[in-house]
Amino acid sequence: MTQVEMSLADVYAPIAAELDQARARFDEEIRSTRGFVNELCEQIKRYRGKMLRPALLLLTGKALGDLREEHVTLAAVVEMVHVATLVHDDVLDEADVRRRLTTVNALSGNEAAVMLGDYLISHAFHLCSSLNNQHASREIGATTNTVCEGELTQIHNRGNSHLTEAEYLDIVTGKTAALTGTCCALGSHFGEAPASTIETMRRFGTELGVAFQIVDDILDLVGSPEQVGKTLGRDLDLGKLTLPLIHSLENAGPEIRGRLEALIRGETAADRDGVHGILRRTQSIEYAKTTARGLVSAAIQRLHFLPDSPARTSLTAMAGFVLDRDH
Amino acid sequence: MTQVEMSLADVYAPIAAELDQARARFDEEIRSTRGFVNELCEQIKRYRGKMLRPALLLLTGKALGDLREEHVTLAAVVEMVHVATLVHDDVLDEADVRRRLTTVNALSGNEAAVMLGDYLISHAFHLCSSLNNQHASREIGATTNTVCEGELTQIHNRGNSHLTEAEYLDIVTGKTAALTGTCCALGSHFGEAPASTIETMRRFGTELGVAFQIVDDILDLVGSPEQVGKTLGRDLDLGKLTLPLIHSLENAGPEIRGRLEALIRGETAADRDGVHGILRRTQSIEYAKTTARGLVSAAIQRLHFLPDSPARTSLTAMAGFVLDRDH
Repeated sequence: MTQVEMSLADVYAPIAAELDQARARFDEEIRSTRGFVNELCEQIKRYRGKMLRPALLLLTGKALGDLREEHVTLAAVVEMVHVATLVHDDVLDEADVRRRLTTVNALSGNEAAVMLGDYLISHAFHLCSSLNNQHASREIGATTNTVCEGELTQIHNRGNSHLTEAEYLDIVTGKTAALTGTCCALGSHFGEAPASTIETMRRFGTELGVAFQIVDDILDLVGSPEQVGKTLGRDLDLGKLTLPLIHSLENAGPEIRGRLEALIRGETAADRDGVHGILRRTQSIEYAKTTARGLVSAAIQRLHFLPDSPARTSLTAMAGFVLDRDH
Repeated sequence: MTQVEMSLADVYAPIAAELDQARARFDEEIRSTRGFVNELCEQIKRYRGKMLRPALLLLTGKALGDLREEHVTLAAVVEMVHVATLVHDDVLDEADVRRRLTTVNALSGNEAAVMLGDYLISHAFHLCSSLNNQHASREIGATTNTVCEGELTQIHNRGNSHLTEAEYLDIVTGKTAALTGTCCALGSHFGEAPASTIETMRRFGTELGVAFQIVDDILDLVGSPEQVGKTLGRDLDLGKLTLPLIHSLENAGPEIRGRLEALIRGETAADRDGVHGILRRTQSIEYAKTTARGLVSAAIQRLHFLPDSPARTSLTAMAGFVLDRDH
């Protein structure tokens, strides 16, 4: 069976049992004695997605040896951190739809969404502190520090049409890839891997995370809302510069650049067809895709040191999925 | 020197050095390599208040023996948790002014405020994980879980004119008193106190926290904005029922009750003078003050087991301050 033919269920097969356990641990941790809190939590569980981060953590651990209790707990922790950032992201982005479902903020108000995000972050750290030593708490704490700095940097740069590719990659590395990198680092650490292996796997996860975010940003610009299942075009509406736009600004003539800059500063309303036309002319979607492809291929190269195993095959396949996904 | 004559500086004298160290640890932990993040953090530092929670933690530790490194670190942690909740609270309350200064959300937008709150929560857990064992991480995680449930319960009950006093006390115990209780519990734990002492001190901190919140809620209704230094009357605007209103609803005749209920449901705009008149008629401010006074006096009784010391005198004085404060 080639990677291309693998479904997500095939990819997750080597860790299917542990992924189920992680889901159960997630649900158990956030369960409340208050009915309406559980109802709010149901809203998030409904849009719990592909469990990409827990899968990365578990597959990394599995590729290096046997999975332990800590892996399962941490798989639940990283998903909880991720879902918390989604809930707060939707408040920041004023998004109404995610994974084809109404977001918490749209359904229950911004106040409930802010507090539900806090509830999830708090439970993530609480669950993490149930482990026997501080290693994971420190790693998760350092990671969420970085995630927040990435988000703050992005907010700070809203409407900044001079954002460079390097600055964009720095933001994306913080807000998205730090966590995927940490998933692979924690998966290796609790697989008792040596420091060099942990760092190699962290880089694999980081490159995958950056590629993932680039694809996400491409979809926000040119995806179809039906396929992607969430509110699109928000980046431009909110003055967020992403890789295709940065490339287009650098490569467009002065007239087009002027139009794009006015859009980014919010002086003119975004006209989706017009933006698509510009991006086509500067071949900027292709450029961003090539960048993502380069990152994924570098990431896959890093896996060569791992012994051949179904888990290694799955990690490679996951890297491929990042490029092919349409949502 | 009697308690009444003590200034806050006198009260904090037994722990002045450690409180300074805690402030320094706080600043060091949240310092970023990014200038604009530090500028955002300056906004919060400016309205860092009376350091009530760190003082409770340190005074409890001091009253039971010598202070350790852990006390100082945890004093910074509890203040960071508290400031994070303030920043998110101001988003929830749409408040413009706190401690006489413009709030982060009003100054930099809700997005930056949500993310800055997350940044502080993350750093609080990160700093907490620097300790040698998991005890404090577990305690802080469990406490923030409770704080969030308290806040969620409050949001859930907006506009509910049937909220009972017991339900109100439950909300307040979660959103405010759980943290002050934990301060005293952690202060004792790292003073190597036995379990019974830790629980006694937790109760002291919890009672103080509930009394503090009742006084806060009274000030929101009848304080003067100049004295209190923050946006007032928000509770009623947001349909939040607090102790004086609950008492008034229970004790007013049907006509007045009807008017209050319409206010709480947001059907009529809050008229400050009218509300004051109603609260006077039902003596509800007096009732709430008596409740707070009862809690403070019960809390002070709990301290009798402590050996006589300046720290014990300060804890007693702090309890008194809760009642007398006008902001």
